[in-house]
Amino acid sequence: MSWQTQIDVEFQHCDPAGIVFYPRYFEMINSVIERYFHDHLSYDFATMHFVDKNGVPTVKIDAEFRAPSRLGDRLTFDLAVERVGNSSLELLIRASCDAQPRMTVRSTLVRIDLGSGNSAPWPKPLADKLRQT
Amino acid sequence: MSWQTQIDVEFQHCDPAGIVFYPRYFEMINSVIERYFHDHLSYDFATMHFVDKNGVPTVKIDAEFRAPSRLGDRLTFDLAVERVGNSSLELLIRASCDAQPRMTVRSTLVRIDLGSGNSAPWPKPLADKLRQT
Amino acid sequence: MSWQTQIDVEFQHCDPAGIVFYPRYFEMINSVIERYFHDHLSYDFATMHFVDKNGVPTVKIDAEFRAPSRLGDRLTFDLAVERVGNSSLELLIRASCDAQPRMTVRSTLVRIDLGSGNSAPWPKPLADKLRQT
Amino acid sequence: MSWQTQIDVEFQHCDPAGIVFYPRYFEMINSVIERYFHDHLSYDFATMHFVDKNGVPTVKIDAEFRAPSRLGDRLTFDLAVERVGNSSLELLIRASCDAQPRMTVRSTLVRIDLGSGNSAPWPKPLADKLRQT
Repeated sequence: MSWQTQIDVEFQHCDPAGIVFYPRYFEMINSVIERYFHDHLSYDFATMHFVDKNGVPTVKIDAEFRAPSRLGDRLTFDLAVERVGNSSLELLIRASCDAQPRMTVRSTLVRIDLGSGNSAPWPKPLADKLRQT
Repeated sequence: MSWQTQIDVEFQHCDPAGIVFYPRYFEMINSVIERYFHDHLSYDFATMHFVDKNGVPTVKIDAEFRAPSRLGDRLTFDLAVERVGNSSLELLIRASCDAQPRMTVRSTLVRIDLGSGNSAPWPKPLADKLRQT
Repeated sequence: MSWQTQIDVEFQHCDPAGIVFYPRYFEMINSVIERYFHDHLSYDFATMHFVDKNGVPTVKIDAEFRAPSRLGDRLTFDLAVERVGNSSLELLIRASCDAQPRMTVRSTLVRIDLGSGNSAPWPKPLADKLRQT
Repeated sequence: MSWQTQIDVEFQHCDPAGIVFYPRYFEMINSVIERYFHDHLSYDFATMHFVDKNGVPTVKIDAEFRAPSRLGDRLTFDLAVERVGNSSLELLIRASCDAQPRMTVRSTLVRIDLGSGNSAPWPKPLADKLRQT
């Protein structure tokens, strides 16, 4: 099972070669994860950061860029949960356009307490929802 | 052997958690590679893109974030050439602050012809200089 | 008459003070104009730049930030055409959240030929549609 | 009198038209002001935000873009203090390349207390240094 969302490639994402500047892909990845937390987990980043004082920094990310994306492309991002650890989360995110693979990302996040900087275990309801993706 | 440059963490790089937003690290990595081409290879990106009509898109990048970086940190980026292929280039880039490791990135670039999109072999003088890093 | 679209304030837009970093507002403004061209004028930026070889650089922009925007805010952008010149376009764009004004921007774009860099008059059908906003 | 710093136009700043994407200019402006506070006022943004819990949000900014800037251009930013108010600061910042004007920005910042969001008067030593620019 997986969860999907879409992002259009806009002018701001593109470099002088006319294709997506790859750091912008990581902004898109961050946006995809944020939407996933909001839409699928019903847990928005504002509540997470400013009410619960938690964060989910990325500790590891591996990306392969299969084919360039261009201005006007509508990218479909497919997010799958690979593993839910005690306080970590491993995601597989694939972007495609008209079924052509563009990018594959494996990302590991860790839930932390923003005050102490220490890792913070996922509450059971959140861990359960993560496992249902 | 390796090549080094420094980047200060500025307000624009930081997120609401007060640390470097990781897509901004990739902008820094791009800047480091651009400076390396300019300073070490004497080959600037303007000439590469607009005169020679070549590009060096990233096809693969793996990053580990060891410790967060904060506003005001001076980051030292250490770039080592791991492998020079026919038209590819594998780099190991490590960022640190006061000798504390912050990030390790392994990046593979491919030299391409911007017109055709095809890979383009490194000219021998450039390949030689790359191997001398 | 005016035209509207919405943008959610995401993590990537916010600074260490927890509010929208104002250069990100200008990325939003660019996105709003791009959507307006696509949705209202049926003229997408990819066609404009890569087929017609035209651009619409901003030559003047004045912005007032009335109140800060925060992570999770849904911003409504209201775009009104103030004046359609021979090759210029003056826009008034206002962002609000729940009817509270956040930002007012007056922007002047000029249509140019990307080859020569010279200004290029709006084709009549486009000028007519611009005047109908 | 004025204060100067330089920023090189890098790949990350440029758009598909091969020129600086104007929201990136505002990131440069922010960087210029941050360096000015650090170098001229001896007051760094990390201390300001995280120790003193103050911020200097931009409340008004007017920009004119005189000529496009391209990859590889070295921009000189000239910062002049126009007016030091009780808690406000009006700056005139001009960017040029080889004496050719590229951009003129008039910016108004307000010093605020990050806790209350209220404006906070400049301490006299800081106001005096601002007036000496």
